[in-house]
Amino acid sequence: KPRRTTNEVLFFPSKEVCVERLFRPSLSCTCPLPHGIETSFSLLLRHILSASSSMDLCIFAFSNVSLCRAVLELHRRGVIIRVLSDKDYAAINGSQIGVLRRAGICVRCDCNSTYMHHKFAVVDKRLLITGSLNWTLSAVHNNMENIIVTDEPDLVQPFIGEFNRLWEHNNKV
Amino acid sequence: KPRRTTNEVLFFPSKEVCVERLFRPSLSCTCPLPHGIETSFSLLLRHILSASSSMDLCIFAFSNVSLCRAVLELHRRGVIIRVLSDKDYAAINGSQIGVLRRAGICVRCDCNSTYMHHKFAVVDKRLLITGSLNWTLSAVHNNMENIIVTDEPDLVQPFIGEFNRLWEHNNKV
Ligand SMILES: [Zn+2]
Ligand SMILES: [Zn+2]
Repeated sequence: KPRRTTNEVLFFPSKEVCVERLFRPSLSCTCPLPHGIETSFSLLLRHILSASSSMDLCIFAFSNVSLCRAVLELHRRGVIIRVLSDKDYAAINGSQIGVLRRAGICVRCDCNSTYMHHKFAVVDKRLLITGSLNWTLSAVHNNMENIIVTDEPDLVQPFIGEFNRLWEHNNKV
Repeated sequence: KPRRTTNEVLFFPSKEVCVERLFRPSLSCTCPLPHGIETSFSLLLRHILSASSSMDLCIFAFSNVSLCRAVLELHRRGVIIRVLSDKDYAAINGSQIGVLRRAGICVRCDCNSTYMHHKFAVVDKRLLITGSLNWTLSAVHNNMENIIVTDEPDLVQPFIGEFNRLWEHNNKV
């Protein structure tokens, strides 16, 4: 049985297109954005929405409403979500961390004075999404950014270990 | 002949230790920092110093003096270096971009109004170093950061393509 391997690279900025059908496939959307186009951002959303059991998210800046919607959708489906964020950024205007908390998602904030500068997610303990991209609107649609999506265990396992370590380390906040 | 694969993950902050022996192996250093200890940062430096033919560097913030020294050392050895940096960050206090330029290294700055937020290097068109880590002192020694080091062609080749694309796109600056 051949092993199917995922090793993808996504570059940004991503063109702004409608991603409504990723959330509501049966809806015929009439918004003014372009439809039916696959972009780096829609591919990122698809990888996130592919989660079936868990998602561990370790992210410095999280203000992107579509990405927040994807996480809320996973939570609604019963996917176990853990979010680790930077204390200072979580408090700024536009941060979605409060939205996640109010939805009942388990969020911990890094309690150090230094930056928790990671931008990675681990889907189903199997798929790593990591790179330069913060989960903000300007990172997705304005900046030059990269994301790697891989299920290579040599890369995924250390990130799982580091997430668990940071999660335990910040269990008071 | 089995294929040797590199798939490493380095986490930061990295303990501050002496890295002098990476630059001058024969020197017996007497500085007050700890010696003979391998850290994430010394491993990063080793990967950079392993370049024998080329290094393409695409980095938002570059102010780390030890990393600058490594790039200058490669340049001295005849390694072909191309550096792409963010225009705004390159101009700030402590940026090493001017040092590289004055040493005769080919540097181009991103001319867009948005951020060139990448933090990656490609060594000898073969080894990719990428992650959340900017090449600054605080990123290396204070922040929580990650770097992936891989020679997986499915990951390396897109970064080579993106570097070449950005390099050509910014050929006027
Ligand atoms: Zn629409
Ligand atoms: Zn020393």
